[in-house]
Amino acid sequence: MNDPHSYRQPGSRLPPRDQLIMGIHAVREILLHAPERLLRVYSNEPQKQGRKSQLLELCEKQGIPIIPTSADALTKMTGSDSHQSVAAHVKGRSFLDVSGFLKRIEGQERSFVLMADQIFDPQNFGTLIRSAECLGADAIAWSKNRGSDITPVVAKSSCGASELLSLIRISNLAEAVGQFQDGGFDAVAALLEKDSKNAFSFDFSPRTLLIVGSEGEGIQPLIRKRADRSIFIPMKGKIESLNVAQAAGLLMGLYQKQFQ
Amino acid sequence: MNDPHSYRQPGSRLPPRDQLIMGIHAVREILLHAPERLLRVYSNEPQKQGRKSQLLELCEKQGIPIIPTSADALTKMTGSDSHQSVAAHVKGRSFLDVSGFLKRIEGQERSFVLMADQIFDPQNFGTLIRSAECLGADAIAWSKNRGSDITPVVAKSSCGASELLSLIRISNLAEAVGQFQDGGFDAVAALLEKDSKNAFSFDFSPRTLLIVGSEGEGIQPLIRKRADRSIFIPMKGKIESLNVAQAAGLLMGLYQKQFQ
Repeated sequence: MNDPHSYRQPGSRLPPRDQLIMGIHAVREILLHAPERLLRVYSNEPQKQGRKSQLLELCEKQGIPIIPTSADALTKMTGSDSHQSVAAHVKGRSFLDVSGFLKRIEGQERSFVLMADQIFDPQNFGTLIRSAECLGADAIAWSKNRGSDITPVVAKSSCGASELLSLIRISNLAEAVGQFQDGGFDAVAALLEKDSKNAFSFDFSPRTLLIVGSEGEGIQPLIRKRADRSIFIPMKGKIESLNVAQAAGLLMGLYQKQFQ
Repeated sequence: MNDPHSYRQPGSRLPPRDQLIMGIHAVREILLHAPERLLRVYSNEPQKQGRKSQLLELCEKQGIPIIPTSADALTKMTGSDSHQSVAAHVKGRSFLDVSGFLKRIEGQERSFVLMADQIFDPQNFGTLIRSAECLGADAIAWSKNRGSDITPVVAKSSCGASELLSLIRISNLAEAVGQFQDGGFDAVAALLEKDSKNAFSFDFSPRTLLIVGSEGEGIQPLIRKRADRSIFIPMKGKIESLNVAQAAGLLMGLYQKQFQ
């Protein structure tokens, strides 16, 4: 989970951890939607029945090499024991910067980007990426200095969406907010403060940058200040707040409802 | 995770697993919102600094006994190693049946109930309960024969909402759907089939029973057939579907938006 190369022996041919995904669903989604990204698959159960071997059959059909690998070795490779007996080496991801992204969506009236600030929990980060992909976001933006980067655990939680969604990985999020604003984006921070607007009656702008923070840390003050507006989901119960992935999924859905 | 009593020695005073919750947030939420439910707290770090000891201080102030317990013993008690060094014995939960619930909401025009079918993953089940509590559902209904029951892992994932939301635990879900319908509920199944309606333009009924199933198993055919309508969230990306907790959170939000 720390140095992505630390588990490798000198001279090893094992891929660096930031080129590994894991989990049955994640590998399957890439196989279905971006097979050209799959370089090889590692599995400790090439002989078993059921879903896993269906997956391996599909790999074989597509000519993707399958490397028999023990469960322990998979755990070491991925830095997690929740690999479900399968991992895959994917071609290095390409990351966009904000100006590259803005060029790509030139002439497009509507655009939705999710910005994740201080999301340190890899499962939450993965779920955010999955929801963003499913609900039609054009990209996810984050800083690896201020939260989780894409690890095998994130790829698994994202159900492979980490390989399908456009990725804007930046060092300075506050500066990036300004660039998005210059590109016609309305920067909306999901947080409860004095002037926050009720999400259920919120009028989204066609180009929206939705900024979400972690439950513990929230959104950095510098980024809050840069945001044009803030938005909250009214809580009807006693629990303080929704999980960040739940909240972001709901807010993305409300944007979709408005513009569908 | 299996027999809730199996870890107990004969004559032990440890509580059965179905009366245990765990995790810092879960215990804190109960302490804040339903302290009368907390019988005692088990912790292996009564002396440490920070959030945990704040929690224990709060317990002390409220006169809740703190039992020093090793990490291993906590793992054994709760059946999970993700207890974050704290567990609590809560007073036995009271469960409603459908007719008891219908009596309780008599005269109430609007009511929303989430029904979980075949949700076997305890984290998903916990997240569903948390979202339901936050987004104003009146109850969650499920069958312990067809999915996870409330375990310490569920209580933790629910952030304590398992102790705050009304719980309808039933044996036969299909029969329960009929009872809800007799009580004026519109039974809406979240699934994609020929006549499913787009969630973003769906007109919810004031009394809505939303039925969700697991990603793998879906909703049982008998229950699908009983439902009045079905609803789907349009997927804009390539990934097959949202996680069930994400989908349910979004659908509950759409209900709230309509009736706020």
